[in-house]
Amino acid sequence: MNAEIIAVGSELLLGQIVNTNARFLSQHLAGVGINVFYHTVVGDNPDRLAAAVSIAENRSQLIIFTGGLGPTKDDLTKETIAKHIGKGLVFDQGALDSIEAYFIKTNRQMTENNRKQALVFEGSVILPNDHGMAPGMVVESGGHIYMLLPGPPKEMEPMFVDYGLKVLSLQVKTNEKIVSRVLRFFGIGEATLETEIVDLIDAQTNPTIAPLASDGEVTLRLTAKHQDVFLANSLLDEVENTIGLRVGQYLYGYDNTSLVNELSKILREKKLTISAAESLTGGMFQQELTALPGASAVLKGGVVCYTNEVKQHVLNVKAETIRQFGVVSEQCAIELAENVATLTGADIGISFTGVAGPDEQEGKPVGTVYIGIALKGSPTVVKEIILAGSREANRTRAVKFGCYYLIRLLKEPQNAM
Amino acid sequence: MNAEIIAVGSELLLGQIVNTNARFLSQHLAGVGINVFYHTVVGDNPDRLAAAVSIAENRSQLIIFTGGLGPTKDDLTKETIAKHIGKGLVFDQGALDSIEAYFIKTNRQMTENNRKQALVFEGSVILPNDHGMAPGMVVESGGHIYMLLPGPPKEMEPMFVDYGLKVLSLQVKTNEKIVSRVLRFFGIGEATLETEIVDLIDAQTNPTIAPLASDGEVTLRLTAKHQDVFLANSLLDEVENTIGLRVGQYLYGYDNTSLVNELSKILREKKLTISAAESLTGGMFQQELTALPGASAVLKGGVVCYTNEVKQHVLNVKAETIRQFGVVSEQCAIELAENVATLTGADIGISFTGVAGPDEQEGKPVGTVYIGIALKGSPTVVKEIILAGSREANRTRAVKFGCYYLIRLLKEPQNAM
Repeated sequence: MNAEIIAVGSELLLGQIVNTNARFLSQHLAGVGINVFYHTVVGDNPDRLAAAVSIAENRSQLIIFTGGLGPTKDDLTKETIAKHIGKGLVFDQGALDSIEAYFIKTNRQMTENNRKQALVFEGSVILPNDHGMAPGMVVESGGHIYMLLPGPPKEMEPMFVDYGLKVLSLQVKTNEKIVSRVLRFFGIGEATLETEIVDLIDAQTNPTIAPLASDGEVTLRLTAKHQDVFLANSLLDEVENTIGLRVGQYLYGYDNTSLVNELSKILREKKLTISAAESLTGGMFQQELTALPGASAVLKGGVVCYTNEVKQHVLNVKAETIRQFGVVSEQCAIELAENVATLTGADIGISFTGVAGPDEQEGKPVGTVYIGIALKGSPTVVKEIILAGSREANRTRAVKFGCYYLIRLLKEPQNAM
Repeated sequence: MNAEIIAVGSELLLGQIVNTNARFLSQHLAGVGINVFYHTVVGDNPDRLAAAVSIAENRSQLIIFTGGLGPTKDDLTKETIAKHIGKGLVFDQGALDSIEAYFIKTNRQMTENNRKQALVFEGSVILPNDHGMAPGMVVESGGHIYMLLPGPPKEMEPMFVDYGLKVLSLQVKTNEKIVSRVLRFFGIGEATLETEIVDLIDAQTNPTIAPLASDGEVTLRLTAKHQDVFLANSLLDEVENTIGLRVGQYLYGYDNTSLVNELSKILREKKLTISAAESLTGGMFQQELTALPGASAVLKGGVVCYTNEVKQHVLNVKAETIRQFGVVSEQCAIELAENVATLTGADIGISFTGVAGPDEQEGKPVGTVYIGIALKGSPTVVKEIILAGSREANRTRAVKFGCYYLIRLLKEPQNAM
């Protein structure tokens, strides 16, 4: 079964809100083996909505609508579709009762237009709204299934998961399940990665392999279809193994993980604590690490050493080092990493110094970054990287490179840097 | 002129990412008087993409595409549209040079498929990509304007604002201009704000008033239409004045500013430097401040004092203070703020200590936060706030409250805290 998601609401077309409903529904539909081929957004305009429905009917079996079920005058999804497919609207007593109960509970006066929310297609399956007033509904007509859901994600999401999916599961004729796995790579460009596995991509049928680049990372989304979820996963394992033999050294994790999350896991496993001296990153490394609950087990803390003054007086970088090499230098990165570890009593000190931009510094071009890593009992290592993005991209990537090098150093110290 | 935005990418249909590009473009198109009537999302499939283009041609004059301009095989927006409208693809030397320069600068090997990104429609206007490799392009054909933009928001957004909008401004035939202004509020809830101005919202026609809440802030988007931009702005001024009389004390800025940006402006104006001692916020305050170019003029640096050890040994919080009051306390916040200012030699020290969650700490509930502000020559002040969000929301809001209190303290010291 193919599906299309139509979001109704002028606020989407004005860019006031983003269409997170389409994303949410797409994720869940994939999980039950329904292919979504199109998302459409249309405003609160009956003619343009009706035209969008006609187009959807020509290309999709299941059409899911979000939005336009509320009490106000511009909410007209139900009325427009009723007219389009020739169904009458009737009051649903259950919905009416629950709307009245809501007003009693919140001690507010119910206005007449709220009753309109209890109107449903005759002969439709009602989807109760446990978090708001307007019920959803599902109706079949002329070989199509129409599902109407409210717009606010807080109402739509639980309604779809608790009631909508069950109705659809009964309708889905296929037994095929879709299983997806995202492989996350760092330190390799999208084009290079693709070149390494171009034969696999060319030959792909099941699983499919889709590369995507974002924020300096590349992901490969593997998607397998099979009646048996276990066998679908075996198909994914197989292609992942083949990919791993070629570019496995850049693979750092799966699905929604991140480099900082993987670093945190390793530090925890090895019972190591860390501290950071951050110049160009301005606290970003520590901020990301402390975004994870329980960060105090791994992060002692550190210093944002944005000025030379703080580098010298708080982190004891030698005046001579700054005079001779500058603060954007290997030598400064070494002292920062070693001294922040000493200052905080951490097992590891990591330092970030460089030129975020927009202006160059000490004659060094924007994007020049030095990352120092001082690991107790090992010689301090420094990595120079040259980045080519905006100020914010350079800072973000510097943090990712720091996590990446440290992960490698902790995993395989002999070939890390 | 009516517009449609077509996002190309199977990752959108699988729900792996959300279509923020459509929102961004819609906001900006409204600003130049272009009505967006539809958003469409279609996968990396040439037949379905071509079908979507045909539909768009029947209903829209301007068609803007995002995504599918990358180097890999599933990137086929350009090729599909070229075939559809009968235009040839040629190499753009400028784009080719900048792709090669990127690889030289980052010291990486350029693979052959990267060259494909420099292909453009013959006779098209090129939109340079200052943050990535694939250029954008605009071409007219058969009464339609086709604009192709890359998918990653970090590339697409600056390309559209810096180059795309200029091309479109020349094409816009309408005399009516839409002018929007976003008023940003902090310290007042959405429902309270709406109650204060409900009569204005009910009576709105031109300008319209649209409230929106997100991340602990509330915004009001005022939108006026007029042939004369100056008069449209006067309409906005008028309604803003009326709103300001009622809730002006919560208004902190306009459009895309942020609390941290407003704080940075005031510090600059007053030539004051700041430093921070961050416990629960883990570096977030400093990270946000250093995201702004030229941050070194205001931020000296500071300490992420995630453990008691660092609070005591780096920031000299008295053992007695911690024993008697705990680290989540007014007393600890005072010492942290004063001592970080002394340590770094800054005019202002700000401290954040509290319980981000998920677990309570020292018997204090999740969401308890103390913010200390030590301003040279004034007694140190502390503000206690109680937040009710997730770990990340509590951290983000703590930073916003810190900026908000400091802004008020610097603007009107007598009634700030």
